[in-house]
Amino acid sequence: MAKFKLDEVDHQILDMLIENTRTPFTDIAKKLLISAGTVHVRVKKMEDAGIIKGSSLTLDYVKLGYSFIAYVGIFLEKTHQTKFVLERLNQIPYITVAHITTGKFNIFCKIRAKDTKHAKEIIFKVDDIDGVSRTETMISLEESINDKRRLMHTIFNDL
Amino acid sequence: MAKFKLDEVDHQILDMLIENTRTPFTDIAKKLLISAGTVHVRVKKMEDAGIIKGSSLTLDYVKLGYSFIAYVGIFLEKTHQTKFVLERLNQIPYITVAHITTGKFNIFCKIRAKDTKHAKEIIFKVDDIDGVSRTETMISLEESINDKRRLMHTIFNDL
Amino acid sequence: MAKFKLDEVDHQILDMLIENTRTPFTDIAKKLLISAGTVHVRVKKMEDAGIIKGSSLTLDYVKLGYSFIAYVGIFLEKTHQTKFVLERLNQIPYITVAHITTGKFNIFCKIRAKDTKHAKEIIFKVDDIDGVSRTETMISLEESINDKRRLMHTIFNDL
Amino acid sequence: MAKFKLDEVDHQILDMLIENTRTPFTDIAKKLLISAGTVHVRVKKMEDAGIIKGSSLTLDYVKLGYSFIAYVGIFLEKTHQTKFVLERLNQIPYITVAHITTGKFNIFCKIRAKDTKHAKEIIFKVDDIDGVSRTETMISLEESINDKRRLMHTIFNDL
Amino acid sequence: MAKFKLDEVDHQILDMLIENTRTPFTDIAKKLLISAGTVHVRVKKMEDAGIIKGSSLTLDYVKLGYSFIAYVGIFLEKTHQTKFVLERLNQIPYITVAHITTGKFNIFCKIRAKDTKHAKEIIFKVDDIDGVSRTETMISLEESINDKRRLMHTIFNDL
Amino acid sequence: MAKFKLDEVDHQILDMLIENTRTPFTDIAKKLLISAGTVHVRVKKMEDAGIIKGSSLTLDYVKLGYSFIAYVGIFLEKTHQTKFVLERLNQIPYITVAHITTGKFNIFCKIRAKDTKHAKEIIFKVDDIDGVSRTETMISLEESINDKRRLMHTIFNDL
Amino acid sequence: MAKFKLDEVDHQILDMLIENTRTPFTDIAKKLLISAGTVHVRVKKMEDAGIIKGSSLTLDYVKLGYSFIAYVGIFLEKTHQTKFVLERLNQIPYITVAHITTGKFNIFCKIRAKDTKHAKEIIFKVDDIDGVSRTETMISLEESINDKRRLMHTIFNDL
Amino acid sequence: MAKFKLDEVDHQILDMLIENTRTPFTDIAKKLLISAGTVHVRVKKMEDAGIIKGSSLTLDYVKLGYSFIAYVGIFLEKTHQTKFVLERLNQIPYITVAHITTGKFNIFCKIRAKDTKHAKEIIFKVDDIDGVSRTETMISLEESINDKRRLMHTIFNDL
Repeated sequence: MAKFKLDEVDHQILDMLIENTRTPFTDIAKKLLISAGTVHVRVKKMEDAGIIKGSSLTLDYVKLGYSFIAYVGIFLEKTHQTKFVLERLNQIPYITVAHITTGKFNIFCKIRAKDTKHAKEIIFKVDDIDGVSRTETMISLEESINDKRRLMHTIFNDL
Repeated sequence: MAKFKLDEVDHQILDMLIENTRTPFTDIAKKLLISAGTVHVRVKKMEDAGIIKGSSLTLDYVKLGYSFIAYVGIFLEKTHQTKFVLERLNQIPYITVAHITTGKFNIFCKIRAKDTKHAKEIIFKVDDIDGVSRTETMISLEESINDKRRLMHTIFNDL
Repeated sequence: MAKFKLDEVDHQILDMLIENTRTPFTDIAKKLLISAGTVHVRVKKMEDAGIIKGSSLTLDYVKLGYSFIAYVGIFLEKTHQTKFVLERLNQIPYITVAHITTGKFNIFCKIRAKDTKHAKEIIFKVDDIDGVSRTETMISLEESINDKRRLMHTIFNDL
Repeated sequence: MAKFKLDEVDHQILDMLIENTRTPFTDIAKKLLISAGTVHVRVKKMEDAGIIKGSSLTLDYVKLGYSFIAYVGIFLEKTHQTKFVLERLNQIPYITVAHITTGKFNIFCKIRAKDTKHAKEIIFKVDDIDGVSRTETMISLEESINDKRRLMHTIFNDL
Repeated sequence: MAKFKLDEVDHQILDMLIENTRTPFTDIAKKLLISAGTVHVRVKKMEDAGIIKGSSLTLDYVKLGYSFIAYVGIFLEKTHQTKFVLERLNQIPYITVAHITTGKFNIFCKIRAKDTKHAKEIIFKVDDIDGVSRTETMISLEESINDKRRLMHTIFNDL
Repeated sequence: MAKFKLDEVDHQILDMLIENTRTPFTDIAKKLLISAGTVHVRVKKMEDAGIIKGSSLTLDYVKLGYSFIAYVGIFLEKTHQTKFVLERLNQIPYITVAHITTGKFNIFCKIRAKDTKHAKEIIFKVDDIDGVSRTETMISLEESINDKRRLMHTIFNDL
Repeated sequence: MAKFKLDEVDHQILDMLIENTRTPFTDIAKKLLISAGTVHVRVKKMEDAGIIKGSSLTLDYVKLGYSFIAYVGIFLEKTHQTKFVLERLNQIPYITVAHITTGKFNIFCKIRAKDTKHAKEIIFKVDDIDGVSRTETMISLEESINDKRRLMHTIFNDL
Repeated sequence: MAKFKLDEVDHQILDMLIENTRTPFTDIAKKLLISAGTVHVRVKKMEDAGIIKGSSLTLDYVKLGYSFIAYVGIFLEKTHQTKFVLERLNQIPYITVAHITTGKFNIFCKIRAKDTKHAKEIIFKVDDIDGVSRTETMISLEESINDKRRLMHTIFNDL
């Protein structure tokens, strides 16, 4: 589990890409006083090392009609069903996050739905997976923070 | 709360950008048999409407030394402190998500830390915010799903 | 707490009014082979005795834009605040039912709201009442039964 | 889910009927300076649109010998039994309200009974329905608020 | 369920017998200025009416080697097993009290044991009854009040 | 904490008195083939040793109008208030049993009341004692076992 | 369960060995002004009586790569499986302590693991034992006290 | 946090000392076919590195009169009191283990006491520490496993 060593330049490249993944490499190069080729090589290297796994858009779910967020805690009948249940959960696109957890739940997941009625249908689908014994749902009244950039900047400043 | 209307072309553009935000507009244009200028206009329009809020890298937290994930439920002394506490939470970069929730917690958040010791320090910082009465922590043993692309594809297919 | 004695005729009058409070007394009279005056006297008597406390419309809340139902359990700081808190709750029209209860909650109430955001505002108002220490919310995904007629018919058949 | 549009006149009609469903239409007409026929047409229109679902008496349950109220939370063995269990609950007239809920219970319902012994019999009937795994009961010590008129007036003032 | 009417004399007789069931009837008679025969008749009448169900010694359990008290909450698999399980509990003499209860437990009982080891054996016996799904135990650190005389005096003063 | 040694004769005397505390000593003497004086001496000795603490009537609470039983768990603000709170509880005659307990409650007690309304008043009195932070109530639907004789016979057979 | 009587000399010997089990008996003898033979005899006697069950090293688990500690509460399907499950737990060396407990868990145990991933594997092994219905895990953020010497000194000072 | 490297010989030495800390170094030397001096050097090195922190006796607590074990979960008023409370806990010798934990408790500790009464005194002492808001106690009915040797052998076999 040896950490990949990022140097100061890698850090500055990531710091700029985090804010806007479409920033042209020439702009980055100009700012860091290096060649665009170097930027390209560095990014490629971080992709090959698996540090950069990809890029994605940040969309406004509410504007897309998905304003309902809930966290669902799942109790399994037996833990050896964990892998099987996770595969089934993975087929429900409304489940965006799922964790195996300590504490009272076996699996804990986050769902995004259009409204209460839609959420009910999704939760019922989860409840009907073989091996799921019971679920408990906690509903979000407001998503106040959803931002990993602050964390990333901190990570890069720490390295 | 009227939804912004996306047509078939917007949908196809988003579908491609979701997979790779750096896909050149000319590639998108070629695939959709439209001009690169049209792609540009459409993307700009969706940005102005706030549907596209930005783009970000998907990094491998474990490789960056952050392998510890926990969910922290926060009990407040009084709810009118919610806004104040959220502002304080926002200053802790290790808190990547925070929700106002129904159920037993007032606020529910997700933290990423280096290890158990680091997690303890972060939780202690949360506990020391004025207005926070108590916290309960649930630790992730494995992040099995963290993928919003399946949802986005579903949303675009539904529209 | 002696029960008011209803006879067979009272019972049949109530049984018809329960289904439709606007049923003309002449219709009731015809069906029961008594005079409309007798129906009038009997209803008046049951109103005076406080058995009939009034009549109300059954409206469709969803069509009126109120599709969100939640149950809110309230913990008080001290029970001698119960009466005061109930008076404050009574000033929030979205709270349609409130009980003093055994078990973990001091007061348990039902709210109807427009949506998640509106529910949040109502719950925050409850939380901010002096004497309220904490609340826990359980959200309804579907109101499957809301019907007191079956009970009333049973009561009248039992008498 | 487009809302039916009620105008100021509809609102005023409902406002008067809510207080007393037997208010003669001629009285309403006089107050609103419109014809009784108009009142009739408006009410008919709201009934056809499903906004007015009916009318019912408000009776004093305590005087009728039903002074015991309890809320019963139901845990199902599997959620796909929800519909079946709700049908069985619907055959027990003492259950006046039932919801599918989030949180720890699958179904949450309200019962009215004569006394502790009667409540026990009802709860046992619920427990014996196929698919019901366990129930938890919370007893009301006092029904402090049970009034939907305040909500309705608010709704009509908002529209 | 009409209450048996006790008059002032009955009350005074009970008040004296509660303190010492062996008080000679002649002593009671002397104090109340009535004949011993009257005392006899009154006591007989209260026994026949089932008000006095018997008398028993108050022993010191600690001195008899039984210093361990625990309350055990029982979860049943299905409520229709309640009667059967209560019969089995009745065969365990260390269970001195058992209730059918609301709330999370189906049956709630009190046990007296010699020590921790003995308590474990008793709890294991309860757990092994058919139909018992799980138990939860709460241990008494001190029996601070165990006195029904204060209640009885209050009852007699109220009548 | 050395146990008082009871011999076979003591045991048989207690066994008879448990069933009926008013059994004449002469009857006991006859059955055990000893003198009435010996019975007297033995009983006196057990009273002096504190093994027999007294005798009391077993009354039918339901017939006396007290059909409502509840268990109340008390949370204290601080444990050093335990003694003070127990003294206050001791002044409420409807509390017949109180324990200092392990687990989530600090004090756990049993109350007997006339009905739901009366129970509410008693619980409110408990809640208003200084140092009591909160209470949780569990209501008995049926007192199925309340019998310490089986235990006593077992104890005497064990000795 | 009669206690073995330790005298002042035994006490002083134990007091020294607790601090360092390898302290030469001649050193102990010199300090206590007795012969080394006496020390030997006394230690032998305490070993034979089972008071001294052995000696062991106190190692630094963190330095050995085991920095993760968790407490796992186990719910059994039926208590008669307790013995069987404990035998299986005994085959998992990472479980250093296990108790049969009162309260909500049937068995409560302590595990030491290398990290989160390792802990997950151990917990899964526990969950897969026949008879184990569910587990709940509480993770240690810091082992602040782990010291039985203070207790031992107190015990010896009390004797 | 680099691990100290133990070689095969260190491992074998520890494996023998774990079973009996008083094993003479000459015996160890003979078995491993090395000199007693080497054993001495190796042990000294592991002590200096802090791997071996000491040695202690395994005593039979039951025979010493300490048969009562309980786990106590502590809720603090505020987490910044953690260090202060741990110092106070450290002054109570009956607390042999204490952890800062995730989940519902802030601190979780293990106590050994003589009996129920003694346990009550210890728990009351904990409850009275400034900053402790509440405690919950879980009592051990049997300490079924308490053995770190199996773990140590596993650790040494893994290295």
